[in-house]
Amino acid sequence: MNKINLGLIGYGVVGSGLVKLLAKRKSYIKNKFNAEFVLKTLCDRSIEAKNPQGLLGTALTTKYQDILDDPQIHIVIELIGGMNPAREIVRGALSKGKHVVTANKELIANNGIELFQLAKEKKCRLYYESSVGAGVPVIKTITEGLAGNKFSSIYGIINGTCNFILSEMTQNNVSFNQALEEAQKRGFAESDPSLDVNGIDSVHKLAILTYLAFGKAINVKDIYREGITHISHDDIEYATSLNLAIKLLAIAKKEEKKIEARVHPTLISKDHPLASINSIYNAVYIKADPLGNILLSGEGAGQMSAASGVVSDLINFVASGQDATLACNIYSEATGLELQPIDQVNTKFYLRFMVIDKPGVLSIITGILGKNNIGINSVTQRAHNRMAAVPVIMLTDYTSGHMLRLALDEINQLQVVKSKPVAIRMEKLW
Amino acid sequence: MNKINLGLIGYGVVGSGLVKLLAKRKSYIKNKFNAEFVLKTLCDRSIEAKNPQGLLGTALTTKYQDILDDPQIHIVIELIGGMNPAREIVRGALSKGKHVVTANKELIANNGIELFQLAKEKKCRLYYESSVGAGVPVIKTITEGLAGNKFSSIYGIINGTCNFILSEMTQNNVSFNQALEEAQKRGFAESDPSLDVNGIDSVHKLAILTYLAFGKAINVKDIYREGITHISHDDIEYATSLNLAIKLLAIAKKEEKKIEARVHPTLISKDHPLASINSIYNAVYIKADPLGNILLSGEGAGQMSAASGVVSDLINFVASGQDATLACNIYSEATGLELQPIDQVNTKFYLRFMVIDKPGVLSIITGILGKNNIGINSVTQRAHNRMAAVPVIMLTDYTSGHMLRLALDEINQLQVVKSKPVAIRMEKLW
Repeated sequence: MNKINLGLIGYGVVGSGLVKLLAKRKSYIKNKFNAEFVLKTLCDRSIEAKNPQGLLGTALTTKYQDILDDPQIHIVIELIGGMNPAREIVRGALSKGKHVVTANKELIANNGIELFQLAKEKKCRLYYESSVGAGVPVIKTITEGLAGNKFSSIYGIINGTCNFILSEMTQNNVSFNQALEEAQKRGFAESDPSLDVNGIDSVHKLAILTYLAFGKAINVKDIYREGITHISHDDIEYATSLNLAIKLLAIAKKEEKKIEARVHPTLISKDHPLASINSIYNAVYIKADPLGNILLSGEGAGQMSAASGVVSDLINFVASGQDATLACNIYSEATGLELQPIDQVNTKFYLRFMVIDKPGVLSIITGILGKNNIGINSVTQRAHNRMAAVPVIMLTDYTSGHMLRLALDEINQLQVVKSKPVAIRMEKLW
Repeated sequence: MNKINLGLIGYGVVGSGLVKLLAKRKSYIKNKFNAEFVLKTLCDRSIEAKNPQGLLGTALTTKYQDILDDPQIHIVIELIGGMNPAREIVRGALSKGKHVVTANKELIANNGIELFQLAKEKKCRLYYESSVGAGVPVIKTITEGLAGNKFSSIYGIINGTCNFILSEMTQNNVSFNQALEEAQKRGFAESDPSLDVNGIDSVHKLAILTYLAFGKAINVKDIYREGITHISHDDIEYATSLNLAIKLLAIAKKEEKKIEARVHPTLISKDHPLASINSIYNAVYIKADPLGNILLSGEGAGQMSAASGVVSDLINFVASGQDATLACNIYSEATGLELQPIDQVNTKFYLRFMVIDKPGVLSIITGILGKNNIGINSVTQRAHNRMAAVPVIMLTDYTSGHMLRLALDEINQLQVVKSKPVAIRMEKLW
């Protein structure tokens, strides 16, 4: 029997879920994996207030150093999130020869390489499956399941809060604010939801996926980011009528030496499997060579999903050999891959203009688009009203972010255009 | 650098794909995984006719014993399929202390436990990712990605040929035979497609999944099996109009001590993600605790997909450490799980009767169903024609296979019923 002593730092939502799950699976893990995980020490800065129950034999502390200094602890589980002191904790644990399991996407996105290198030096292992997709084994699929494949693109719905809000807006005809309120009521959004709805959380996860798939570490601040707060119910309705669904996608693509990495609301065909990933579900859709297109989906958020990912990491730790190297492979493409600025990224666009309904307006707008070399695939005017502004929806052909910006700046200044034009990128996933 | 000598047995479609892929990924595998796979010996009973090209330094043989007897070969790759001599090859290799990678579903389904035990005794590892879903990492997801979860059900579209045929019949309004012909033309079906279309291939794969998910080895001949050859285009059309899609599903469920394991055409809601898995794609939809519902999908058939799975196995072998135990965990639920005979399995049914269109017929049929305690959720008569037989479609409530059989036997003998009633099981996946 493998008896492994754990030190858990962070007794919040995920930490307490983990403690519950480990207790519930104790005999199963013994029987199936011949392993026993003993929670030797639990650290939380407000451990007294949280007053954990049923932890026989577990030492409680408010000082994480107690865990780092304990030579009997084999694995440190970091579940406090954020950069500090998480980075010191993970570095400290690895430096002392302890293995680490973390769910901290921000830390891995920003300091993954440094930490993987330290782990390698110290012959320790660093697991972080829950950092993307929580318990859905996205990282294992890319690093192990598809080992030997090369990747050309990844499309991820990797923020459950945003996916819930957009699904809610689509299915129940509600506004962003109403959907957000519902998400908060059901525990799917934080009281301060900005990290989620502004796309920051997705950017962190995308940085990890980009590194794992392409061997390219991208500075998170260089990843283009657009959240979902400006998505209106009207646009969802118009998109639906065009057989399009809206998702906050995290997209990474590689073509020759060029890499794209971007997070933004995206219109995709309603017939694509990703379009039917709703509510708090996460999904990644990966194009791999030679395997083709892979879709992996599941509940990528919530207490027990993240706890499930941590338990999988712990079991994978015991069940893989001492000298296993898969968990944090330090691999960089030897030759420089270059991140494309969003201005140079070509996509199709959904555009909505609110215009005065009079002859010649369409011609002015399409003229400006044409001057900027932007082809138009379809135009729909949604209503006629000589008095008020009416929406005109255009779907463009491929154009760069730069050209589109030039065109929209000019169109925005027209007298006949009554509000800032809306532009949403489209992706063809097949 | 890990230099690993391979002996490959079977140079058919997958074997030759593997050789190509290993050559193509040679430097990538060196750089990323610090490993070099050397194909030391290639065995095929018609190696001369196949005349493999570009294999510098690889010995060619028609005798697999040459590979088993070579002490310099570390891993034997078995890609001949079938039971004999595959079983002798895998047993022989393990007995001699060689690790094994195989894609052989029939062998693992029938002799998995024996082989896992032998591997354990000999401290060898046995990998078989390609046996289910080819390169789609279904096995890794269940055994490693979701480690720590318990499973309650698995729904698999795990035969690409059948899925292609059913998709083709649905999307292009063609008959089974026309769709099969198209599949053969495009290389998606064997010239003798019976193992696929009769559901035997799916049964083998389901036996593997049932063992991995529930720790229960089921004799493949005890798994209920119904192929797709009797599916008519009419039924697909009627089902479509009821918002149902038809898939050949491999289903395993566990409730308390009872297990169901069955392969049959199944009607599911068109709104469920599995319904949009078309063409040669495979998918598994898994209900796990605590993770919830997981969907994994990709191209689960074809030369390069299977080759991709084998390469992943090889890389996972090198990267997971000498004493790794994950690959073939021998785990049986301590307490006896009991396989439910199909007669005792409760499902809803789609029924189609071809009846004489005259008053009172519906009442006779529903009377017989009612006498057998079979509730009816909806009835649709598709046309009126006083001269010829017309189809009547009924969707039942939950009933056992036994009760349904009794009812249909009686209905089938009615004068007003003009052909054998059609019954297709339905599943509610949410």
